[in-house]
Amino acid sequence: MKAAVWYGARDVRIAEVGVPAPLRGEVLVEVAYCGICGSDLHEYADGPHAIPVAEPHPASGATAPLVLGHEFCGTVAALGPSVTGLAIGDRVAVEPNYRCGACPRCRAGEYNICRHFGFAGLMGNGGMAEYAAIPAYMAHRLPETVSLEQAALFEPASVALHALRRAGTTPETVAVVGLGAVGLLTVLLAGERGVRRILAVDVSPGRLELAAGLGATDLIDAGREDAGERIHELTGGEGVDAAFEVVGSEIALRTCLAATRRGGRIVLVGLAQEVSLDAFALVNNEQSIVASVGYRDTYPELIRLVAEQHLDLTPVVTSTIVLDDLVSHGFEALLGGPGNQVKILVDPTAHRTGAAVPHPPADRTERQR
Amino acid sequence: MKAAVWYGARDVRIAEVGVPAPLRGEVLVEVAYCGICGSDLHEYADGPHAIPVAEPHPASGATAPLVLGHEFCGTVAALGPSVTGLAIGDRVAVEPNYRCGACPRCRAGEYNICRHFGFAGLMGNGGMAEYAAIPAYMAHRLPETVSLEQAALFEPASVALHALRRAGTTPETVAVVGLGAVGLLTVLLAGERGVRRILAVDVSPGRLELAAGLGATDLIDAGREDAGERIHELTGGEGVDAAFEVVGSEIALRTCLAATRRGGRIVLVGLAQEVSLDAFALVNNEQSIVASVGYRDTYPELIRLVAEQHLDLTPVVTSTIVLDDLVSHGFEALLGGPGNQVKILVDPTAHRTGAAVPHPPADRTERQR
Ligand SMILES: [Zn+2]
Ligand SMILES: [Zn+2]
Ligand SMILES: [Zn+2]
Ligand SMILES: [Zn+2]
Repeated sequence: MKAAVWYGARDVRIAEVGVPAPLRGEVLVEVAYCGICGSDLHEYADGPHAIPVAEPHPASGATAPLVLGHEFCGTVAALGPSVTGLAIGDRVAVEPNYRCGACPRCRAGEYNICRHFGFAGLMGNGGMAEYAAIPAYMAHRLPETVSLEQAALFEPASVALHALRRAGTTPETVAVVGLGAVGLLTVLLAGERGVRRILAVDVSPGRLELAAGLGATDLIDAGREDAGERIHELTGGEGVDAAFEVVGSEIALRTCLAATRRGGRIVLVGLAQEVSLDAFALVNNEQSIVASVGYRDTYPELIRLVAEQHLDLTPVVTSTIVLDDLVSHGFEALLGGPGNQVKILVDPTAHRTGAAVPHPPADRTERQR
Repeated sequence: MKAAVWYGARDVRIAEVGVPAPLRGEVLVEVAYCGICGSDLHEYADGPHAIPVAEPHPASGATAPLVLGHEFCGTVAALGPSVTGLAIGDRVAVEPNYRCGACPRCRAGEYNICRHFGFAGLMGNGGMAEYAAIPAYMAHRLPETVSLEQAALFEPASVALHALRRAGTTPETVAVVGLGAVGLLTVLLAGERGVRRILAVDVSPGRLELAAGLGATDLIDAGREDAGERIHELTGGEGVDAAFEVVGSEIALRTCLAATRRGGRIVLVGLAQEVSLDAFALVNNEQSIVASVGYRDTYPELIRLVAEQHLDLTPVVTSTIVLDDLVSHGFEALLGGPGNQVKILVDPTAHRTGAAVPHPPADRTERQR
């Protein structure tokens, strides 16, 4: 089968490898779609970051070279020994987290902060391939009313949903700072969860326009105005109940702190560096900085929202490509492009099925330019 | 009457001033005790910090010179017009926060983060005087079973109680980093609230011993060992559910971050400066940094705990002095001393009543050296 194999920074090869045999407790999934994540890009551009190279990852037993891709879904093609509750032909969304099931956090149900936490597609083989063998606990069976196009977005949507849960009881007003796929899905799911006022912040007019289509009530172009000040103006001097840092920069953190009201929460979704912050203001305003990492128990809610509330996650998809184009039309487009791409899906079986019709239709691509 | 009046840094005068007349909605309190707080010391040493000097404070209308002291209690001596629910002779604990009652936070009951927040004794006249005129809403009537000695500690105990509430649902294990009066009261109230394991961290053997007497289960001398590492050892490699930063330093914050488990909370009680922190670790461990400022709705619970649970707050009191000794035996003892003093109470009417017996008895002072 064809697979996108990470060998090193700037060295991801579309290689011919054997179809993996599902081991005990595993299922083989024929992959329908696999999204490209910022962390994949990161590994491609200047990895390894999370990819194990020296020692095998404790959960997967894998080291590089390994198959990339953790945002995937598909159809069960084979069952390993001892798998129950799944059948060949089931369409499944893959929740790609390894977990040990035995550490204190796993026992408390907080498997996203398992001691041996890892992702299939980063710490083990993933979904940028025709087939992927995964632990059966990662597979969530989809009802007929949920398409694989929707399920392809469940992973980034889970990051957004978990971040919203970390903001506590539903806030009335939120600011989302950074409108990549996760930021845009945060806007969408905030509205779905009943947030009345959603202030979207980015420097890209195209992304701001996308946010408006997903339910943002106020658009703030941080390249043109001071976002913190503008948010205070728009909220009558108060600030928002919760702000989401989805950029991953100290500047965005400062915007969030400035945008949030006394007693409010700043949820860190993207941040991963040493930062400097004014604890005097933080304490004086009795704010909280709440980190959000990965997700837990999100797939059942997303399945329900798509099946019953007709939630549509696909507006964040800006193109669908074939596996052979992963580097040129995927990684390089995201790294070098003018910022028009948000979520790119890879269809790794298109060369067999004749799928991978251009997605989205031309008019949506047009709209966000 | 005698009062301790702040004129400027290193210029606090024990002056003869008029007894204030209680205005509409105010009561006159004959002060029994007034504790010396770190913030008083701060204003004495190198103020003004919170004391208004240029413009009158919006809540109190006051500017310096003004009477210091916000940790006080006493007996109602006179009522201003329109005061109901209080009578002359009532013994009261004073909750010294001004609040506007009209801003969004006040309307939400979060008056500790009122837009016009301030303290009697810092932003207006306080309790280091024979009498203080305060808004009646600040006065909590004490049942007979609650002594004025206990009520004198309600203000710092409120800071501790609010910090514990900010830690969320009762944690099983906590670390308290910094054993001043608030840290020690956090240890005491953590036990009272059902925390099973309380790890106390300081550099003073005397304060650690005091913490042991108040219910700390593990003592960590941060001058002798790496507190973060030691806490991990003591908790089987996990870390504590919640850590309290009660020192006010970046080093203590880092100890708290290191001491706290994945998914746990760091509560900032003392911090008030620009700090640098590793957001990568924070996010990876999905921790929360929760600020705690002042308190709200704490006095009724403290009254109940002392009246019904026989909670004793007074072990944190290391001496009681007369008003004339405020600078020499109060501020200078705290600034220059060998760190044996924790909470010093001022008895501003001792010269009239013949009270101000040395407090605590000699053996307690002895024990903590
Ligand atoms: Zn991802
Ligand atoms: Zn685990
Ligand atoms: Zn104080
Ligand atoms: Zn207010």
